[in-house]
Amino acid sequence: MAKKDRDTYLKSVPLEDAKNKYFFIVSSLNNVTDSEVIPVIKSLNRTTIKPVFAKKSSPNYNAAAMDGIAVVASSTYAADENNPISLKLNEDFVYINTGGYIEEPYNAVIMIEDVVEIDENNIEIRQAASPWQHIRPIGEDIVENELIISGNHKIRPMDIGALLSGQITEIEVYKMSKVGIIPTGSEIVQVEDKLSPGKIIESNSHMFAAMVEENNGIPYTYGVVPDEYNAIKDRVLQVVEENDIVIINAGSSAGSKDYTVNVLREIGEVVTHGVAIKPGKPAILAIVNNKPVIGIPGYPVSAYFVFESFVKPLLFKYNRNILGEPEKIVSILSRRIVSSLKHEEFVRIKLGNVDKKIIATPLDRGAGVTMSLVKADGILAIPQNVEGYEAGTKVEVQLLKSTSQINNTIVSIGSHDLVMDMLSNELHVNKTDMFLSSAHVGSLGGIMAMKKSECHIAPIHLLDEQTGEYNKTYIKKYLNSEDYAIIKFVKRSQGLMVKKGNPLQIKSVKDLTQKEVQFVNRQRGAGTRVLFDYCLKKNEINPEDVKGYEREFNTHMTVAAAICGQSADCGMGVLSASKSMDLDFIPIAWEDYDICIPKEMFKDEKIISLINTMKSKEFIKKIEELGGYSTENIGDVIYL
Amino acid sequence: MAKKDRDTYLKSVPLEDAKNKYFFIVSSLNNVTDSEVIPVIKSLNRTTIKPVFAKKSSPNYNAAAMDGIAVVASSTYAADENNPISLKLNEDFVYINTGGYIEEPYNAVIMIEDVVEIDENNIEIRQAASPWQHIRPIGEDIVENELIISGNHKIRPMDIGALLSGQITEIEVYKMSKVGIIPTGSEIVQVEDKLSPGKIIESNSHMFAAMVEENNGIPYTYGVVPDEYNAIKDRVLQVVEENDIVIINAGSSAGSKDYTVNVLREIGEVVTHGVAIKPGKPAILAIVNNKPVIGIPGYPVSAYFVFESFVKPLLFKYNRNILGEPEKIVSILSRRIVSSLKHEEFVRIKLGNVDKKIIATPLDRGAGVTMSLVKADGILAIPQNVEGYEAGTKVEVQLLKSTSQINNTIVSIGSHDLVMDMLSNELHVNKTDMFLSSAHVGSLGGIMAMKKSECHIAPIHLLDEQTGEYNKTYIKKYLNSEDYAIIKFVKRSQGLMVKKGNPLQIKSVKDLTQKEVQFVNRQRGAGTRVLFDYCLKKNEINPEDVKGYEREFNTHMTVAAAICGQSADCGMGVLSASKSMDLDFIPIAWEDYDICIPKEMFKDEKIISLINTMKSKEFIKKIEELGGYSTENIGDVIYL
Repeated sequence: MAKKDRDTYLKSVPLEDAKNKYFFIVSSLNNVTDSEVIPVIKSLNRTTIKPVFAKKSSPNYNAAAMDGIAVVASSTYAADENNPISLKLNEDFVYINTGGYIEEPYNAVIMIEDVVEIDENNIEIRQAASPWQHIRPIGEDIVENELIISGNHKIRPMDIGALLSGQITEIEVYKMSKVGIIPTGSEIVQVEDKLSPGKIIESNSHMFAAMVEENNGIPYTYGVVPDEYNAIKDRVLQVVEENDIVIINAGSSAGSKDYTVNVLREIGEVVTHGVAIKPGKPAILAIVNNKPVIGIPGYPVSAYFVFESFVKPLLFKYNRNILGEPEKIVSILSRRIVSSLKHEEFVRIKLGNVDKKIIATPLDRGAGVTMSLVKADGILAIPQNVEGYEAGTKVEVQLLKSTSQINNTIVSIGSHDLVMDMLSNELHVNKTDMFLSSAHVGSLGGIMAMKKSECHIAPIHLLDEQTGEYNKTYIKKYLNSEDYAIIKFVKRSQGLMVKKGNPLQIKSVKDLTQKEVQFVNRQRGAGTRVLFDYCLKKNEINPEDVKGYEREFNTHMTVAAAICGQSADCGMGVLSASKSMDLDFIPIAWEDYDICIPKEMFKDEKIISLINTMKSKEFIKKIEELGGYSTENIGDVIYL
Repeated sequence: MAKKDRDTYLKSVPLEDAKNKYFFIVSSLNNVTDSEVIPVIKSLNRTTIKPVFAKKSSPNYNAAAMDGIAVVASSTYAADENNPISLKLNEDFVYINTGGYIEEPYNAVIMIEDVVEIDENNIEIRQAASPWQHIRPIGEDIVENELIISGNHKIRPMDIGALLSGQITEIEVYKMSKVGIIPTGSEIVQVEDKLSPGKIIESNSHMFAAMVEENNGIPYTYGVVPDEYNAIKDRVLQVVEENDIVIINAGSSAGSKDYTVNVLREIGEVVTHGVAIKPGKPAILAIVNNKPVIGIPGYPVSAYFVFESFVKPLLFKYNRNILGEPEKIVSILSRRIVSSLKHEEFVRIKLGNVDKKIIATPLDRGAGVTMSLVKADGILAIPQNVEGYEAGTKVEVQLLKSTSQINNTIVSIGSHDLVMDMLSNELHVNKTDMFLSSAHVGSLGGIMAMKKSECHIAPIHLLDEQTGEYNKTYIKKYLNSEDYAIIKFVKRSQGLMVKKGNPLQIKSVKDLTQKEVQFVNRQRGAGTRVLFDYCLKKNEINPEDVKGYEREFNTHMTVAAAICGQSADCGMGVLSASKSMDLDFIPIAWEDYDICIPKEMFKDEKIISLINTMKSKEFIKKIEELGGYSTENIGDVIYL
């Protein structure tokens, strides 16, 4: 299908306008009052439809408030310190435990501590009891017909306790909203199916289902519908019939096979197509047979934000719960962010408490990068009318993790290596309340982040071409070296990664100038790039003669993936990356992958645990099993 | 059983010491590593046991990042604004949608917007494409063998999305902890059973079950065990066998039938009996067959705090989740609190944002008052070494509700009437995001709270004995009347409440001096007390001649409950309270129950909604149905 058949939705509606318009229409549908009567003991997190008044008082009788004896107060009036009076069991008093029933004629309780036992049947007291002392009167806790909880109240554990005490056993609550989830797309396959090129795993609907559950709805996920107009139409009509809210995933854009919007136009009303948010622009807000139907774009991150913006508020509305303001934290942007006036943008953010300031570092902004969401500590919403923020700006970031978690996180910015991931995991498993979070910006980027106090540690591997020594020279050059130290991590084997079997017979850097070799490079500032440039220089090779020198990837693993796929033949990286993608490897150098750290951090409990973890036998064993690493001096501290 | 058989546990252990000792012992049991492999799509909120690395890259092929055409980049190099080049479908290019598979030899995507269609098979472009532009390389999102989530990670919806994208379908997680709940006590009956005096409804175990669920455990509630040593012993042994953590509810104190501690001593180790917290002192921390067994006292509020202090942290520990610091808010104490050095005390607190300050008002401190927990907005923990706080002290209160809910709450302090509960409910049902919260301290207490800016509104009914007029005189006397107004609420019928059938033939206040009449009074400062005192004066009756004049209750409903029970014959109150307890009623006066409010509050959106609610036909109808009320001027504003 060619261009003319594509729907164009050039004008997107600002988020607030889209919400207001759509939620107003949904409210007017008046289809959300279904209630049901359920047992109180099953009512956790459900919402009451009307106020609940106690059926009976609690306590429902006058009850002892203490362990002791029940007496008739007037029979004790004569007692004092000098004139004890004695009382006879079952005539003048009875023993009673806390909560016990005060039977007539008794009308006071004396604490067991104030009772002097004479024999099995007689006691003595030295203080008069006043009427009704230490007795819980009927209704002390809950009085018959007292309001226990109001309507529109979300039931908590203590409410269940109080309702039962008031002898309420059943309660009328709003029905939980059913959310029908329709995955569409001929390219979509189920998780359990075999994946071939061009096919995508059906992951979004499971993320949606979990989000629906988290927000007190009941998710119903339907089978994948292929990109066929009538198949989509029939499925939407069925799912609308069976649910309260419907999500159609993907097909919401304007590609040649994006039928969703046209289907919705035929069978219902499309209120909005295109919302000025990034990621998430191609959202569709529609009504079909009086039910809200939301078309959500396919990129996982877009999908997440469209759900958060529209489906979550609808679920709260249907459950009569209040969607409070998300918790935010004031933090300082570590780098400049430019954003377009065309949309409100949701930027995923890494947060760290460095030097008592919360530092916010933007993560990858691509809509397709699910991992940016997984790794995010928070979300920065840049309003539509703002063009971005300069580095150093104070911004409010919506928290995805707790502040205590953020405060207990070691922030690492610098070079990436698999051993950093392993260290992160090992630390957290050893110390459940500690985290290590890494941003991968290359070694020089790490040193610059350290200079700006944006991180606690910076993993680096930077070769001094003059001395052949690693790391020290760069720290001395860019940082006040008196204040910094190095924690030795690993020596690792760097080399050229090539396709399995090395079909182009690449033997050294010199072979990269051959016409048929497609190279793929690391980004500027990466230690591996420094090493590669050094190799080129030593071999007197002009970078322009290496095809693909300009094509940059940010990690060893993405370079390996490119070679593993069809887009490159060779790239530089570490042996472990090469092995994990089953590539061949031509070793070039052993280099020192170390951690740069401010000396004052050695006082920090997190760093002490980090070093202990590095030096632990279990961790060293795991690294050595990878191959391509030497752990000789791991955890040693070197002062400069 | 007499005193000598009672266990005494005079020394309670400070909370932190008790926690440290017990959790240290529990950690050393090493019985919490059970894991299971479950489908990723069922893994929400479960905790990983080890790091998870991607099985495959995502995308798993080079994919179009835009809707457009796939081309060979080198075939476009000649194109510019002045020299368009034309390309042939299926020879030079193919149409492609976002996410589509870039097949060889294509290596670039041109956006559909930049394509000029000539005819069905030919297009024109005016700009060269660079290699790999608008293509998502293999692994752009997730690279094969990349760390997706670490060990000890609680799985969120986005993690499920990422795991599936990395082709992980099953995951190893910690087993959910099973918590066995044993209710004990011969006085305990099930909710569905008939309640007779001396019997208590089994409500705590259902509160516990909900709390276990909220904290990601699986609750198993067992049947009620009577107070018999061997029955308790057998049940504990069975439940320990079947669960990871065991709760025994009640019997943890030292009453004559409190067998729990002795049972636990016989079959296991009692680490601590008696923790220095209030409520909750009689807690028992024990180990039986390598499992933690916690004896929890029977009062619902004690039960709640002992669960929060010990069972919740254990569940977090077992789930390998981090129990973060609870959210706290700085607030100003509205009244003095005295607390003992014997224990750390947990005071239930009402919070309100009055005049831009958060005001904290303590609720009933009795361990038996479940409603204090239901009504609480927060908890103030008074440390053991602190004797209390003066009014006006800034204190940190742990939040039980969101700050936005607290900010959206109208704080009412003053006299209680059923119509206030109904108004609270009606407001919240009309305006889901608004709340009305009432503290009942009597009319004069309300005026004093208003004077100290502790509330937004004060419901009052105060008779001026000289003029016979209600309310105005008192506002003028105690407040700067220029700044205040009255919102008319209801006229209500006050009178003497007596037992059904009026067995003592009470006809007027004069009959209260009869010897056999047991009266029950309202607290000082209550408008009803003012009215009663006025009646005594008018009839020249000495309060000392009214038996029970000194016995005070805080609401109409508790007075009615006392008469309904055996402890009183007569008390003063409103017709609605009398009717709701099925008492007889001797009318004495119609009085004005109004709302005192600062004039500046009329700007407040919450107050506007409140008045609209008061004036609504539905609300008026509900009040009139109660009987004993006149709503003639309801919602009218009177300036003084």
